[in-house]
Amino acid sequence: MAAAAAVAATANGSPATAAEAAEEIGGPTNPMVTPLLTDLYQFTMAYAYWRAGKHLDRAVFDLYFRKNPFGGEFTVFAGLEECIRLIANFKFKEADISFLRSVMPTCEDGFFDYLREVDCSDVEVYAIPEGSVVFPKVPLMRIEGPVAAVQLLETPFVNLVNYASLVTTNAARHRFVAGKSKVLLEFGLRRAQGPDGGISASKYCYIGGFDATSNVAAGKLFGIPLRGTHSHAFVSSYMSLDEIQDRALKSPDGLRTCEDFVSLVQTWLRKLQLAGSLSGIFGETNQSELAAFTSYALAFPNNFLALVDTYDVMRSGIPNFCAVALALNSLGYRASGIRLDSGDLAYLSIVAREFFHAVEKEFGAPDFGKMTITASNDLNEETIDALNKQRHEVDAYGIGTYLVTCYAQAALGCVFKLVEINNQPRIKLSEDVAKVSIPCKKRCFRLYGREGYPLVDMMTGENEPPPKAGERILCRHPFNESKRAYVVPQRVEELLKCYWPGSSQKPREELPSLKKIRVRCLQHLEQMRPDHMRRLNPTPYKVSVSSKLYDFIHFLWLNEAPVGELQ
Amino acid sequence: MAAAAAVAATANGSPATAAEAAEEIGGPTNPMVTPLLTDLYQFTMAYAYWRAGKHLDRAVFDLYFRKNPFGGEFTVFAGLEECIRLIANFKFKEADISFLRSVMPTCEDGFFDYLREVDCSDVEVYAIPEGSVVFPKVPLMRIEGPVAAVQLLETPFVNLVNYASLVTTNAARHRFVAGKSKVLLEFGLRRAQGPDGGISASKYCYIGGFDATSNVAAGKLFGIPLRGTHSHAFVSSYMSLDEIQDRALKSPDGLRTCEDFVSLVQTWLRKLQLAGSLSGIFGETNQSELAAFTSYALAFPNNFLALVDTYDVMRSGIPNFCAVALALNSLGYRASGIRLDSGDLAYLSIVAREFFHAVEKEFGAPDFGKMTITASNDLNEETIDALNKQRHEVDAYGIGTYLVTCYAQAALGCVFKLVEINNQPRIKLSEDVAKVSIPCKKRCFRLYGREGYPLVDMMTGENEPPPKAGERILCRHPFNESKRAYVVPQRVEELLKCYWPGSSQKPREELPSLKKIRVRCLQHLEQMRPDHMRRLNPTPYKVSVSSKLYDFIHFLWLNEAPVGELQ
Repeated sequence: MAAAAAVAATANGSPATAAEAAEEIGGPTNPMVTPLLTDLYQFTMAYAYWRAGKHLDRAVFDLYFRKNPFGGEFTVFAGLEECIRLIANFKFKEADISFLRSVMPTCEDGFFDYLREVDCSDVEVYAIPEGSVVFPKVPLMRIEGPVAAVQLLETPFVNLVNYASLVTTNAARHRFVAGKSKVLLEFGLRRAQGPDGGISASKYCYIGGFDATSNVAAGKLFGIPLRGTHSHAFVSSYMSLDEIQDRALKSPDGLRTCEDFVSLVQTWLRKLQLAGSLSGIFGETNQSELAAFTSYALAFPNNFLALVDTYDVMRSGIPNFCAVALALNSLGYRASGIRLDSGDLAYLSIVAREFFHAVEKEFGAPDFGKMTITASNDLNEETIDALNKQRHEVDAYGIGTYLVTCYAQAALGCVFKLVEINNQPRIKLSEDVAKVSIPCKKRCFRLYGREGYPLVDMMTGENEPPPKAGERILCRHPFNESKRAYVVPQRVEELLKCYWPGSSQKPREELPSLKKIRVRCLQHLEQMRPDHMRRLNPTPYKVSVSSKLYDFIHFLWLNEAPVGELQ
Repeated sequence: MAAAAAVAATANGSPATAAEAAEEIGGPTNPMVTPLLTDLYQFTMAYAYWRAGKHLDRAVFDLYFRKNPFGGEFTVFAGLEECIRLIANFKFKEADISFLRSVMPTCEDGFFDYLREVDCSDVEVYAIPEGSVVFPKVPLMRIEGPVAAVQLLETPFVNLVNYASLVTTNAARHRFVAGKSKVLLEFGLRRAQGPDGGISASKYCYIGGFDATSNVAAGKLFGIPLRGTHSHAFVSSYMSLDEIQDRALKSPDGLRTCEDFVSLVQTWLRKLQLAGSLSGIFGETNQSELAAFTSYALAFPNNFLALVDTYDVMRSGIPNFCAVALALNSLGYRASGIRLDSGDLAYLSIVAREFFHAVEKEFGAPDFGKMTITASNDLNEETIDALNKQRHEVDAYGIGTYLVTCYAQAALGCVFKLVEINNQPRIKLSEDVAKVSIPCKKRCFRLYGREGYPLVDMMTGENEPPPKAGERILCRHPFNESKRAYVVPQRVEELLKCYWPGSSQKPREELPSLKKIRVRCLQHLEQMRPDHMRRLNPTPYKVSVSSKLYDFIHFLWLNEAPVGELQ
């Protein structure tokens, strides 16, 4: 298309063609994200539009959601970068065309010629920056372009935003309940809904405030910090200390070598057994476990973290761990800590902490009491909240199933609605007011108050004068006549930015790095008024329309709604 | 590895090398499924094993789940093919090795040399055939091989089986409640957990008994039938009939051409308005909608199916649909039907059906009353069950969010447990009996009764004489001493078959086509005793161990369990 050059030229001045813009942006992370990843009806509609000569009609669609997830009053928007990567590379391959022809055998050849040429060089995408805190009804993305082409984007855009925003929000909620000082580890790959359910979860949980993931593929793809130690199977795969063949361990400075680290561990275990302050807590510990811990310490003396609940935490796991940790200590290493994966995590973390303090005192081991205690085992928002309500000594949480599958609510209901075609505003009515769409190509603003908190989001028609800081502005509920309020914002922020300018001459926003998106997300969460964020009875954040848009919505509504007859 | 040739040679005699076996089987459907798609701790454990000289110890792991999902008493096993495709192609790339080296900088070079050589030529995989009905505790897969290599498979295998089995089971449950005569359409792509959440859902819902999907990418990848018509946006994108430029429509035989199909539709709408038996039901219908339906019929005269609830089903959608359908009829076409996406589906389907019958009678339109009525709008097992308890006239269901995200239970808790190492059986104990693993490399059998129903599954040690048809066999609950029963099976089926023979000389089971897996699934569901399958209070299917295995489990348990002291 002729427009292709124009698009690319405007993109920050650098790339000169659509192909170059695509190269700058890169392809979708997941190679299965192609223009065929859409619903069949997008193609049947495209054909009907084409057949009617209507496929190039200029349409505006809003992508938004209707209700915050997890019973909360906020959502984090994510998935934008993947949408932009899709449209930057949007082009059907010859094999795709052949397949579509086989599926729709009665369609005329000219339609497939048209599909062969379709790209997104004439599509404009405006969006709220990824990682922003967002609210129901406000468009996360506004997509404008030829109606047939934009419809093809509906399914993949909704797919890419839906889960991304849901799991980012879930991660943010877990961070909120855990508190800033705790380490949060995403361990969900094995329970995720498919391979990229896992990979996407790792990416978006990191944006939402997690510190690291266990997922190596996600670590490589996105540069997310990786964490992990060993499993129960590792412990039970050892039968005895005799299995360890190479028993030598160098000191951290490389100057000394302990020729038999296994014996050193055994010596420390005896010292622990004989120590007055610890006696009576344990007797003989499990030798499989001791062998596994010793072997793991030999492999990772700088980073020894042991899973201590395979047999019995206090009678075996903790004493075995301490023996190995003290042996490492005596060579100049410092052990990292333990992981608890079953039982009463509050109680076990407390008694483990007491044991570590006793060891510190008994043997003068510096900071031994500060050993990191990680908890895992089907954790979620509720269980962390319950732990917080008791005393506990957990420093880090490993969270899997409930986080990545969004078990509490497995889908966010994003929708993609036509709001204007050929400059004519369109409204979708419904008996359920929550399902009525807000018509018109719109601009969206966030109004901030004196204390720096966002006060209200406001949508206006495209050509209205935008709200200004210091001016008194009437904000109206889009559907409820009696809900309205005057606001004098301290600051006004326009929410929708241009991420894909199409054939317009607008500059294109850059796609920020994952780390920058994460920083934005954490800052946004931080700046919200606390009552919107609390778990129990959070206050809904207000979303409004301008007075002019309100009047227009209701004018259209009356025009479009069928008049009923009482019978 | 030297073993590679041996593996491949046994695979049905044809391929001579591991590379050829991989080529025969093909790579994973999702290119993101690589050996890096695993948890970091699989690599740290591999290093610790390697450092201890223990990485080639021969280990046996079982992959199983502990509880049937969705409150039911059955599960369908799926995901096997993707696991086998992964191991057939299991090989680290140089870039993977470099990345791992950067993540584990303290590991010795020799370990990375070892990783460079690792493949699955010495791993044996036995599994229950994909699409089988399966039960808790019975291994779905038994994986045997060098402990470090097999551990690397844990995370991707669990990931690939977990969601696949969960969503197949969910689909099977939807089929069960809908009944055999209804058409089931999977419409979940936009709400799925990521792109391959959607693609996998389409595949596995088809296996579980769905008839078609809306997902074009899945249709192309797997040959699943595709279905779809148009959306509300299509309807509201039209303003009036004037927009339709090309109004000509040929008859199906191509002999006649109606030059103005739009006028023909308008004529039929007037006839409907004047028909005695229909008068009073509607007045003026919505012209956007009429234009959209007419346009869609011009594009797909052989397959006209319209979404009738954009404005008002009975006052606009149904009359407009009938006008277009009758116009098609008069040219020799036959319309397909309608879709309802909101409101009281039971009521609307009934009044729509009555209207269709009235049209058939009024205009002598053959089979017009049999028009297909499809329902969508957040359907799930419960809503279909509720529809069934009322009268309704729905012929086909389009199901999305609840089906593909498995909203009612978003994860199946598959686990991967060490059961034997170096011929030594291993048991994983837990205070929760449900979490105790069943030790030993095992064989598994399904025992069938006289009526052809499966009676009980039984696990035995590898070297025990297998149960035989006609013999009296004692089946014991694995953990509960008092639960046991004698069975005389009519037929005995060995469940675990060899899908990847490793360096053994066993023949390899072929991976069946998707259609064959679907047939197996439907046959298996069919042959279950109905009381295991019902939604309300289903009877648990019995899973047992042989008397010998029972004794051995409890011998090990006593040996391994720490002896407590009452205080």
